[in-house]
Amino acid sequence: MKRVKLVVAYDGTAYHGWQLQPGVPTIEGELNRSLRELLQEEIQVMGASRTDCGVHALCNVAVFDTNTRIPAEKISYALNQKLPEDIRIQSSVQVPDYFHPRHCASKKTYEYRILNCPFPIPTKRLYAHFTYVPLDVEKMAQAAEFLVGEHDFKSFCAAAAVVESTVRRIYELSVEKEGSEIVIRVQGNGFLYNMVRIIAGTLMEVGRGNLEPEKVREILDAKDRQAAGPTAPACGLTLVKYEFEV
Amino acid sequence: MKRVKLVVAYDGTAYHGWQLQPGVPTIEGELNRSLRELLQEEIQVMGASRTDCGVHALCNVAVFDTNTRIPAEKISYALNQKLPEDIRIQSSVQVPDYFHPRHCASKKTYEYRILNCPFPIPTKRLYAHFTYVPLDVEKMAQAAEFLVGEHDFKSFCAAAAVVESTVRRIYELSVEKEGSEIVIRVQGNGFLYNMVRIIAGTLMEVGRGNLEPEKVREILDAKDRQAAGPTAPACGLTLVKYEFEV
Repeated sequence: MKRVKLVVAYDGTAYHGWQLQPGVPTIEGELNRSLRELLQEEIQVMGASRTDCGVHALCNVAVFDTNTRIPAEKISYALNQKLPEDIRIQSSVQVPDYFHPRHCASKKTYEYRILNCPFPIPTKRLYAHFTYVPLDVEKMAQAAEFLVGEHDFKSFCAAAAVVESTVRRIYELSVEKEGSEIVIRVQGNGFLYNMVRIIAGTLMEVGRGNLEPEKVREILDAKDRQAAGPTAPACGLTLVKYEFEV
Repeated sequence: MKRVKLVVAYDGTAYHGWQLQPGVPTIEGELNRSLRELLQEEIQVMGASRTDCGVHALCNVAVFDTNTRIPAEKISYALNQKLPEDIRIQSSVQVPDYFHPRHCASKKTYEYRILNCPFPIPTKRLYAHFTYVPLDVEKMAQAAEFLVGEHDFKSFCAAAAVVESTVRRIYELSVEKEGSEIVIRVQGNGFLYNMVRIIAGTLMEVGRGNLEPEKVREILDAKDRQAAGPTAPACGLTLVKYEFEV
């Protein structure tokens, strides 16, 4: 038996998120199905980040155990032949048996892209949230600074979520203009349910002038989802980097 | 009667190109249909660039005549309500009655994107051609220089095309690395049928080491489609800029 770690890139447009659900296409479901086809074993992958419906990834991580004699590094090539073209394995390597993607310290980086120009650009529509209201990038960057560090992010967690602790650490949070896009880039040791999208929605409120940047400190202190801005749409969000401290 | 010029952006993935064809979705067909719905007149747009099946545009141009009382500048907003989300008008302005997008001097800029890394990235698959064979960008750029200027591009024109002259002028042709993508950017006073895709296919042969950069001069001199490289796939091509000298 060996444990194999897959790095998985996908376009989330056509999927109901990562997590297996009966009757609808999910990333986890596609991975299990194609691994079963390839390895002729029942496989259940363990995912690192359960991305939502419509969210994209360059590098999500899945781990599974197998008795196959196929060398771990070759599995990526063979699996890509079985997967639909909107899911592509970037690498497959053997890892120690104790490695579990959700039980070891990690740093994740997400990008949230906003297309901010007078009219939507069709070739960007699946990977950036469009708004024609001009956003003040400098004010958004000022507001972002209040979120860096270790905080209780309860205000930035979907109200329905049940978690032991809502304390997380953000290492970096930048807001930058790239042509007609605004890119919010956030690196942290973990994120609560909808946390990045609520941060994006709140920073957009600041960018529109509806909230002063300093207000973000008060929103943190409130520890109340109602205090923060709306949850920004899923299509703008991409998991771009995943580092494990093993 | 007034003449209106539309700047049109589209994701070409779902269309059989610009030009009207019975029974299949085309950009021209969608524009005529939605203008008819909006203006309650029979409208036939005149397109500037008849892009191929699967090719994208940020700024193709269409012109039409109308008796509507809707101010020209307002048409863009109203038309976007009628169009599918993979076609979006970027601007609508009144132009002189003599303006015809194919009969006046213009400069067009195309980008051809190649995703060059070990595995395909799903979120790029519709807008860049993927190859895992490492390409030598410097050699591609050297080869590109031979194509700049006024030349007979007969070798870079689809063999079946019938045109009066195959002489065109390329003002600029650059090959640059952008992360894992290679971007071929070409500006010219006009392009023959498949010309940019044949240039891209030929430069890729140079990048792979199958052709020396200097060979491109001989290919030009041959005035024979057989001498050049293959036609690169449509998905990598986007019309990014269109300037008229009116």
